[in-house]
Order: sequence, then C-alpha cells, then structure tokens
Amino acid sequence: MIIQLQQGIPAELKENILKQVSEIGYKANEVITQEAHYLVAIGKKEFDIRHIGQLPGVADIHRVSEEYKLISRKWKVEPTRIDLGDGVTVGEGNFSIMAGPCSIESEAQIESVVAHLKENNVRIMRGGVFKPRSSPYAFRGMGMDGLKMFHRICRENDIKIITEVMQVSQIEEMIDYVDVFQVGARNSQNFNLLDSLGEAQKPVLLKRGISGTLEELLQAAEYIFSHGNEKIMLCERGIRSYEGAYRNVLDLNAVPVLKEKTHLPVIVDPSHGIGLRDYVESMSLAAVMAGADGVIYETHQTPEKAFSDAQQTVNFWESERMIRRMRQAYDLRESF
Amino acid sequence: MIIQLQQGIPAELKENILKQVSEIGYKANEVITQEAHYLVAIGKKEFDIRHIGQLPGVADIHRVSEEYKLISRKWKVEPTRIDLGDGVTVGEGNFSIMAGPCSIESEAQIESVVAHLKENNVRIMRGGVFKPRSSPYAFRGMGMDGLKMFHRICRENDIKIITEVMQVSQIEEMIDYVDVFQVGARNSQNFNLLDSLGEAQKPVLLKRGISGTLEELLQAAEYIFSHGNEKIMLCERGIRSYEGAYRNVLDLNAVPVLKEKTHLPVIVDPSHGIGLRDYVESMSLAAVMAGADGVIYETHQTPEKAFSDAQQTVNFWESERMIRRMRQAYDLRESF
Amino acid sequence: MIIQLQQGIPAELKENILKQVSEIGYKANEVITQEAHYLVAIGKKEFDIRHIGQLPGVADIHRVSEEYKLISRKWKVEPTRIDLGDGVTVGEGNFSIMAGPCSIESEAQIESVVAHLKENNVRIMRGGVFKPRSSPYAFRGMGMDGLKMFHRICRENDIKIITEVMQVSQIEEMIDYVDVFQVGARNSQNFNLLDSLGEAQKPVLLKRGISGTLEELLQAAEYIFSHGNEKIMLCERGIRSYEGAYRNVLDLNAVPVLKEKTHLPVIVDPSHGIGLRDYVESMSLAAVMAGADGVIYETHQTPEKAFSDAQQTVNFWESERMIRRMRQAYDLRESF
Amino acid sequence: MIIQLQQGIPAELKENILKQVSEIGYKANEVITQEAHYLVAIGKKEFDIRHIGQLPGVADIHRVSEEYKLISRKWKVEPTRIDLGDGVTVGEGNFSIMAGPCSIESEAQIESVVAHLKENNVRIMRGGVFKPRSSPYAFRGMGMDGLKMFHRICRENDIKIITEVMQVSQIEEMIDYVDVFQVGARNSQNFNLLDSLGEAQKPVLLKRGISGTLEELLQAAEYIFSHGNEKIMLCERGIRSYEGAYRNVLDLNAVPVLKEKTHLPVIVDPSHGIGLRDYVESMSLAAVMAGADGVIYETHQTPEKAFSDAQQTVNFWESERMIRRMRQAYDLRESF
Repeated sequence: MIIQLQQGIPAELKENILKQVSEIGYKANEVITQEAHYLVAIGKKEFDIRHIGQLPGVADIHRVSEEYKLISRKWKVEPTRIDLGDGVTVGEGNFSIMAGPCSIESEAQIESVVAHLKENNVRIMRGGVFKPRSSPYAFRGMGMDGLKMFHRICRENDIKIITEVMQVSQIEEMIDYVDVFQVGARNSQNFNLLDSLGEAQKPVLLKRGISGTLEELLQAAEYIFSHGNEKIMLCERGIRSYEGAYRNVLDLNAVPVLKEKTHLPVIVDPSHGIGLRDYVESMSLAAVMAGADGVIYETHQTPEKAFSDAQQTVNFWESERMIRRMRQAYDLRESF
Repeated sequence: MIIQLQQGIPAELKENILKQVSEIGYKANEVITQEAHYLVAIGKKEFDIRHIGQLPGVADIHRVSEEYKLISRKWKVEPTRIDLGDGVTVGEGNFSIMAGPCSIESEAQIESVVAHLKENNVRIMRGGVFKPRSSPYAFRGMGMDGLKMFHRICRENDIKIITEVMQVSQIEEMIDYVDVFQVGARNSQNFNLLDSLGEAQKPVLLKRGISGTLEELLQAAEYIFSHGNEKIMLCERGIRSYEGAYRNVLDLNAVPVLKEKTHLPVIVDPSHGIGLRDYVESMSLAAVMAGADGVIYETHQTPEKAFSDAQQTVNFWESERMIRRMRQAYDLRESF
Repeated sequence: MIIQLQQGIPAELKENILKQVSEIGYKANEVITQEAHYLVAIGKKEFDIRHIGQLPGVADIHRVSEEYKLISRKWKVEPTRIDLGDGVTVGEGNFSIMAGPCSIESEAQIESVVAHLKENNVRIMRGGVFKPRSSPYAFRGMGMDGLKMFHRICRENDIKIITEVMQVSQIEEMIDYVDVFQVGARNSQNFNLLDSLGEAQKPVLLKRGISGTLEELLQAAEYIFSHGNEKIMLCERGIRSYEGAYRNVLDLNAVPVLKEKTHLPVIVDPSHGIGLRDYVESMSLAAVMAGADGVIYETHQTPEKAFSDAQQTVNFWESERMIRRMRQAYDLRESF
Repeated sequence: MIIQLQQGIPAELKENILKQVSEIGYKANEVITQEAHYLVAIGKKEFDIRHIGQLPGVADIHRVSEEYKLISRKWKVEPTRIDLGDGVTVGEGNFSIMAGPCSIESEAQIESVVAHLKENNVRIMRGGVFKPRSSPYAFRGMGMDGLKMFHRICRENDIKIITEVMQVSQIEEMIDYVDVFQVGARNSQNFNLLDSLGEAQKPVLLKRGISGTLEELLQAAEYIFSHGNEKIMLCERGIRSYEGAYRNVLDLNAVPVLKEKTHLPVIVDPSHGIGLRDYVESMSLAAVMAGADGVIYETHQTPEKAFSDAQQTVNFWESERMIRRMRQAYDLRESF
C-alpha cells in the first residue's frame, strides 16, 4: 500500500497516519523524494483502504501487490521524465541517444567524441573512468583525473555525462562531475550502492544484471526510489545464455514488458546486447521499434585502438548513420 | 570444399573429379538439388584448390570452413528467394507475412481467417493440423481431414499454406496439400525428418530448437539442402531462459547474424518469441527493423476461444494494425 | 483420474464405466500395458471419486493432478523394476551399470568391451549404431549390420544391449536385436517416436532433453506408458548452460526430485553430463550418492581412437576403478 | 608470469628484478601476502624465463597462462589449508561442515544451534546479520548487535563464525567478530569489496555468482589473493537455469574441475543449490563424493519459523543424520 502524503504535512497528522497504519498491522516505510512524500506500508491483512485514505494529510492512496511499489505503473500511470538540464530530458516524448567510448582514455579522445556528438546533435556522452574488470591485472580506468577532464570538456560543449559508479565511497567524489550515474550489470544487486544512490539525488541509469530477471531489476529500482530518488532509468543490456555466436542475448522482450510494469524510462544498450560491431545498428533500430526511450552505445574514432570493448564499438561513420536511422525509426513509431 | 558441377555433366567427367577428390584424401558427398549439382568434399589436408577447379566439368569451386557448407553465404552471396507460385515469393526484396491460428479447428474458423488475410493482402496462412503437445492427453490437431479442408478453402482464395510436419511418414500424405512444411522447435534436430524433407522438394520453414544454437540451426538446414532441397527458410522463435516474465526470449540478435552467415531467408515468430498477446506487435516491428525477411504469427477471430496458444494469439483488429505498421517499418528499412 | 480395471474385465462392465466417466464430463483414454488395464480420465469438474470407484470392474482409482498420471508416484508408490531377463533387473534394489563405446565400430572393438564388462560383472552394454550428428557429413553409425554383430557377440556373452533408436521406422528392424531402446536428448519430444515405443513393449531409456524440464521428461514418459509400455527408465544427462568449462551441466538435483515424483528408475549419464574424461568418475560417484538407480557411461579400449566422443570416454583401467568405487558407494548408500 | 621473491629481499635486489621485468616489456604487480612476496608480471612477449629466474632474490618463477595466476594449481600444486585456530582447519585432509540458520534471530536461536553443533562435533557456524534482500522492504538482518551476540556465544562454546559481508565499510566493524567473511553470490563481482577483503587478512569464502562462470569465480579469487590474502575458499551454490522444479541447479561438475584448476578449498552449499529441504541431504552426500572439501548448509530448530529461507532449511534431526552420513561418505572417499 502506498500512501502519498500532502506536501508539508504537519508532524501530528503524519503521526496519526503512522499510528493507524500500525494498528492494522502494517509496517510503514517513510519515503521522501525530490517529488513527493510517501509512506509505503507492508502487510498482509485485508482491510478497507478508505479507512486510511480519508485521514487528514493523505493526498492519495493505492494498493500495489507487486514486490515493487513506487516504481509500478499501477501506482503512477504517467511516464516519468527526467530533466538533465539545458533542455535535455529522458523519457517518453523524446528518444535519448547516449554514446561514447567504453573507457575515457585521453583529452584528444574525449574531444573527438564530443565533436562527433555535437555534429549529430547528441546531448549525452557515455565513458567509463572506473571500469569493472574480470581480471585484477587489467586496466581499471583513468579514475577521478579522467572524470574531471571529461567533465571540463563536456561542460564547454553543453554535453551531459553518464558514467559508471562502482562503490558507495565514489559517489561523493564523483557527484559534481556527473549528470547520470550508471550502475553496471555486476552491481545490479549491490544493495548498499543502490541505497546510497537513492540518497544522492542524481539521476541513475540502472542496468539489468548479467542474468537478472525483470523482477530483480524492478526491485533494484525500488531500492533507489525508496531512499528518496525518483530519477531512475532502467537499461536492458543483454542476458547471458548458452549461445556462443554473440557476447549476450539482447532481450528486447524486456522493453514493452518493462514499459507496462513501470513508469520509468527504458533504455537499451545494443553494444553489450550483441557485442559485435557489425550488428549494433540493426539492434539499435530494433530497440527503437520495440518501444525503447533511448539507447546507450559505444563509439570511438578508431575502435580498433580502443582500450576496451573494441570489438563492439562502432566508428563515427557508423554512429552517424545509426543516429540518423534511429531518428527516422522513432519518427515512424511516434506516427503510429 | 564445394564443387559445383556443370549441369548435365557426362558420367566420365564426374567420375574423374571424384577420383581426384579421393586422391587428395577427401570424401565427396554428391548433392543434386532443384537448382544445381554439387560435390561437397570433406577433408583436412591442405592443397591447391585450383588443382580441382580446373578439371573439366567443374562450374565453380570454393573452400568453406564452417560445419555447414552449401547454405553458407561464403559459398553463395546472392540471397535465396523461394517462389511459392502465383506471385508469392519469400526472401530479400519482399517482406513475407504468414498468419493464422495455432490449430486448424473448423471450416468456419478457416474462412474467417482467410477473409481477414485477403482483406489485408496477406498471401500465406499458418495453421497446425498435427500438433506437438507436451501431454499425451491433450488435443493433437485435426489431422489430414483438417488439412484437406484447410487446403480446399485456401486454394479457392489464392492463399498459400504453411503447416507443421512431425514425422517422416506424414510427408507423403501431406505433400499435395501444403505449400511450405514447417519443422517445429522440438524437431529441429530430428535428422531423419530433415533428410526426408531434403528429398521432398517442397519449401521448408525450419524453426530454431528450444535451446538451439545458430550453429545447430544452420547444420539442420544443411541436412535438408544436402539431400536435394534448396528451398529453406530459417525461423527464430525465442529461446528458453531463466526469465519467467514471458514464455521465451525472442533472440533478435539471431536475425542480422544469420543473415550474414547464410543466404537463406530468415523469418521471425513473435508469437512464440514472447508468448504474450499484448507485446506481439512490438516484437514484430522490432523484427522488421532487425532485418527479418518475414514474420509468422498467430491470429484468431476470438483468441480467448482458440483451442491452443490463446494467450499469445492476436485478434483480427490487432493483426490488421500490426500488418499495416510492419509494412511501414519495412518501407522505412528499404529506404535506408 | 486413473481408473485401474480388473484384469479380464468383461466388455459390458468396461462400457458401463466409460459411460459413467463420460457422464461426469471426463474424457477417458484407455491404456493397456504389459501389467494392467487402465482408464486415464481427463476433466476438470469436481465430483466424488467413490462414485466411479465402487463400479463393478474397477480395481483401483486415484486422482492425480499433475500433467503426468500413470508414471506418478502418487498413483504407484512401489518403485518400478524392469526385468531384462537372465537375472538382469533395473530399478530399486540394484545399481545398474551400463557401459560401452559411443559408437559401435568393429567386431574387435565390441569384443574388447565385452571382455572388460564380463571381467567386472557388468551386464548391460551401450553402443550406438544410428548416431544423431549435428553435421550431415559426419559418420552416422554402422547401422543394422553393426547392430547384428553387436547382438551376436553380446548374446554369446550373456550381455544385454542398450542402443539408440532415432525414428519410428527403425523400431521394427531393431527390436529383435535390442534389450533396451534408448531415446536420445534430441528426440526427447519426438512424440511420434514415443508413441511407437509405447506400442513396442521393449524397455526404453528416455533421456532428458538438451534443455528439457523435468516436467517435459515426465510427460514424455507418460506418452510411452499411455501407449502400453510400463518399462521406462529416465536418464539425466546434463543440461545446456552458459558455462563453457564443460560440455553440459550434470543436474544431479534431478535425481532425488525425479525419484519422488515418479516410480520409474532414474539413471545418470556422467559422460555427457560433464563431457570431460578426467571427471567422469567423480560425477559417477556423486550420482550414486544422489540416489540414482544406475549409470550409463562411455568406455573404449583406446578412447583417443574412438570414432566419436573421444574426449569424454574413459579407458578400461579407469572404468574398472569407477565400477569398483561406485559399488562401494552404493553399498554405503544402501546401509543408510 | 609469477616471480616469488625471497623473504626479506633487499630493496636493491627487488628494484633490479623490477627493472629487468620492465625491460622485457612486462608490467609487474607486487603482491605481499601472509605467506609470501610475489611479482605478478603481465605481458605478451616470448622470452626465456630463466633470464629472470636466475636473478638474485628470486625464489621461484613460473609461467601461468590463465587469466588467474596466483590461485592456479599450475603455480602451487600443494592444496591450500586454512587454519581458523583452535584446531579448526579447512582444506584437503578434512571435511569441513559449516551449518546454521539463514539469519541470526535471537540469543535463544543461536544457543539452540550451538548446542546442536557441539553435540555433533561441528566447529563452524553460519548465520547472517547483514542480509541481501531483493525487496527494500524485507528484513535485512540484525546487524552489528546480532553479530556481537553471535560472537559472544560462539566464543564461549569454541565455535568459529562465518557470516556475510556486503560492503567495504562493514569490514572494519565486523572483523573482530568474524572468523570467515562470506561473499555472497550477488557480490561475487563487487571488485571493490574483493580488493578490500584482500587487504583484510581474514579468511574469505567466496560464492560463485548467480550465473557466474568458473573463470569469473577464479578471477574474483585472484582479486583477493593479489591484494594480499591467500586464505580463500570457493563455494559452489547453484546456478540459475530455466528449470522451475528447484530454486537453482547445483552444479557439482564445478567441484572436480575447480579442484584441478586451483589449490584453494572448494565448499558446496546444498541448501541454496537445490532450495528444497527434502533433498538437501542427497545433494550434500553427492557433494562429498564429487570431491568437495566441505559443505555449508542451513539448519534451524524449527525451520517453519525461520525468518528467511524456511523452505530450504533442515531441522536438527535431519541435520544430525546428514552430518553422520556425510562423514561416512567422506571416509569412503578417503579410502579410495
């Protein structure tokens, strides 16, 4: 049960509602986000919801039976749109393109990507500075120095930054240099990180786990939301399977199903989703038609020389064509 | 190594080629299809291919290193187009729509579907008369009586028929009433059935196995081709996974990858691919943009009353909208 | 609902029971096996089972709610034991060892295996003469000539034969030379083959599908049983997964779970289950302790020279040690 | 390439070795553990290893081609044994039993489990105080208060404690109350946590990821080792699959394969591995015969009342029987 409280509710009214919730045997979780003030009450007993609904201070009330509540479309029918500032918004009504290298490598590299994005009117750049790597001996990214450089160049060019955060202690140092925190597939159930991102008030793009279910992805988003942050995007990035012909199986089924289950934007990562450069465009276009609110993909001036993910990174020529075609596909979809 | 022989090659020239192939330690498999006459030679020794290529009677020769040969795009770059007669062709240059009920149920049911297809200018109707069912006590289809009725009504209306064949002994009785034999996911490695379909000269739509790899699908197609039948379509229909939110995971990655590996047409089955009616349209549109040569899906006048697969079958209103939108998406794709 | 009829029930009594079943809206499937005479009645209405149970001619009656009925342990608590003749029985109370090469290759090969088995008091030999191969150009087995040779040598040495059958038309030619028909993983849902094996009255070992669920395996067994053949063994042989370190993942969870769900014997194939020779012994021993009624594995005098499955085949020295240890493990298990 | 340095190597000798390694184009990672001092050098060039091996200060040198190095059995053939003090050792030569509730709930609960363990001469108790839960609204464990109580009772009874750590910041507060840190499946690629545990010098039990490969598990262990901690145990706990009959598929193939790839002890968790109480014993016994160095499982005085994982938790009567039988199976295995 979700109880939305009136903004600026007096303490005594809230206490009264909490008391009533407690009396029917429910446990209330208080959630204060950028947008609103909620009580999420968990319990099993049947009772007449109007009993709570008519209390003073209650703005709205709804029963939600899933394991996730606040992010459910049953609670909020209106799609969430996330404003990144300067006219950049993610969510229904836009098709968001986020592109850039796997890893931030150098000033020259950032500048070449930024120029490519500007030419194509793309406003969000991806690029990792902390890289999760299977081997402890592999390159782990440029770290904060790389991020500061990334930030400086993007600010000068009016480009927003999305980059991966890997642990709680990085949030504070990164937050001023980032527009969207990305949570990688390996951290999709790192609950402490999710809790802390819920408190951080910065938009979050949450990737589905390597073999994560949609239910787990939605519950992970509920972690963030229930700690106070409504600005969440979900990302389908391919699941692990027995098929050896590609790196992952991009599960586009997830797109329309997630769009129905939640009001949050759904982004697709075709680069990790197939893992093979030649097919990234086809999968991007398929993602558009499946109903995605955006894509995030890897591009680099010379993919062959990229420090990581070279085999799934498109060059600028390919990227330009993809962008153009995705926009045409999106226009067609919108015309339906 | 594939050696294409000249049409009408004299016996002594062929014998000479076979002798030379044998002398280099290769084993030759003779393949005579509707289109051409081949020797597929298997062996490991390195040698100069021109030694065979310049023999009299050889039309063309090529090394193909994959486990599948004749169906490889490395052998035949030109895409295969399959002519079903009366102006119905499957393969590049067309987008083929095949629709109809899971099971053939009655004359009235067939007529209602046929009318729906004609109104929308769809020329191929699907419908099962022999149904593979997990339980021995479930409805197994109307059998040959159903097929004859299906055939009569379709012929009167200039509609082609695709229907599933489950065993070798059915081929002969079905062949006069069928335009395309469908091999279901459970039979995708029923090698005897594949051998026999190779001899049957009727077009075949071959579904990927329930957890089949692309390699297995391609080798299954090679079975059919190497027994003399070049008229093969491959079908992606979803793979089994841990995800419980839908029946299968439609693997659209398979579409561009198969299109590059083979010259055969690639069809997508969004109905089985997601298994939930509300999302069939989204996945159909995604399939178009991924590069499919066609779709096969389930439709019924009153899906709620269908004998089988009710939960993944769209009604005619939904089907009509899907057809219209798929064609628009295909037109956009062709314009790229 | 399963209704066991009295042996030799007069026709009019049976008709009366069928009439009563039909009147309550159930559809009766008549099943006559080597052991008994049943009606399996399928329907949904609630009614008092005693109404049917007290009819003359009814020996026993039971509600079984699963999708499989006659093979359920809810119907028959007593474990099934399958008598292969000459003192060879498969099922609880024994631990059955079935060993031999992947493919039958030659008279000398058969003789060497037979000698090895006799020395170790193993009474059942495996060996394929019809081989399902992914590639149409691979060795497909010695066929009937191989089977006849296999049969002659085994008969002379009092060894029983288990070998794979791949299609309906092979049953008749093979039946006199075989003690147990094996249905391979790729044919685990070849329903026509299962139907025909139900009519064949010869014991059947049914392998789980490549990504088959236990439910599908049990329903496949129900196909055989419901066509008249109670002599069925189930076989766990590994499932397909994302893990590349071995050929398959041997799913020993299946053993105790199947043992509870069905009265049929459960056999484990560690050779395909892990696919790597060095670990076959460990997995065999684990299978014993998990509760298996037997194992089937691949052995060859010189595995390196085997025509197929060389990398998962143990030599006779390894086989001898495995047999000895499995028997010790089985004795320990029986002592519990 | 692993270079083991002589203990107490003078700085100038180390510098010289580093210089030589650098000159051949390799990047050296210095690793100082409880046991030894290593340089792990990563590079691709071929060169004569003796060139480095004969330098003063080098104790041993070895090429290791896998992605994991120090934990490889190719580097260290001798199995690792981890001494927890007071005569409790994990590793070859022992069979370690770790048992206890999913969650620590109360003093009475801990005392009942401790009494059960003492009666059966089990020296290691499991129990979670920080619980990873899919839903943010679920019980998340008793936290540090629970751990201190857990520690006090276990110390009084000479029982060692294994409990899960979920984030870097918990290590310091937990370290004095814990004998083995457990890393859960969801954190198996939480690299920052692994790094920090490498510095913590406390034994670590590392669970395989929910769909983790063996390669990923081994690389995760290498993270810990390369940060200075050699005291690592690996744990197979079931993998995610399509099979709905149980919670996970216990992958016992992993046991002999891991035992060959690494010198670290391998523990099996049958409770999560099958997730169904009735079958935990069968899978425990199978784990013993597959070659495991120990098991970790869930037991509770009244499983029905446990706060979490009730359906996979055995009661004390079942636990007692399991312990007795596992020891008999282990004795048999050791007699081989």
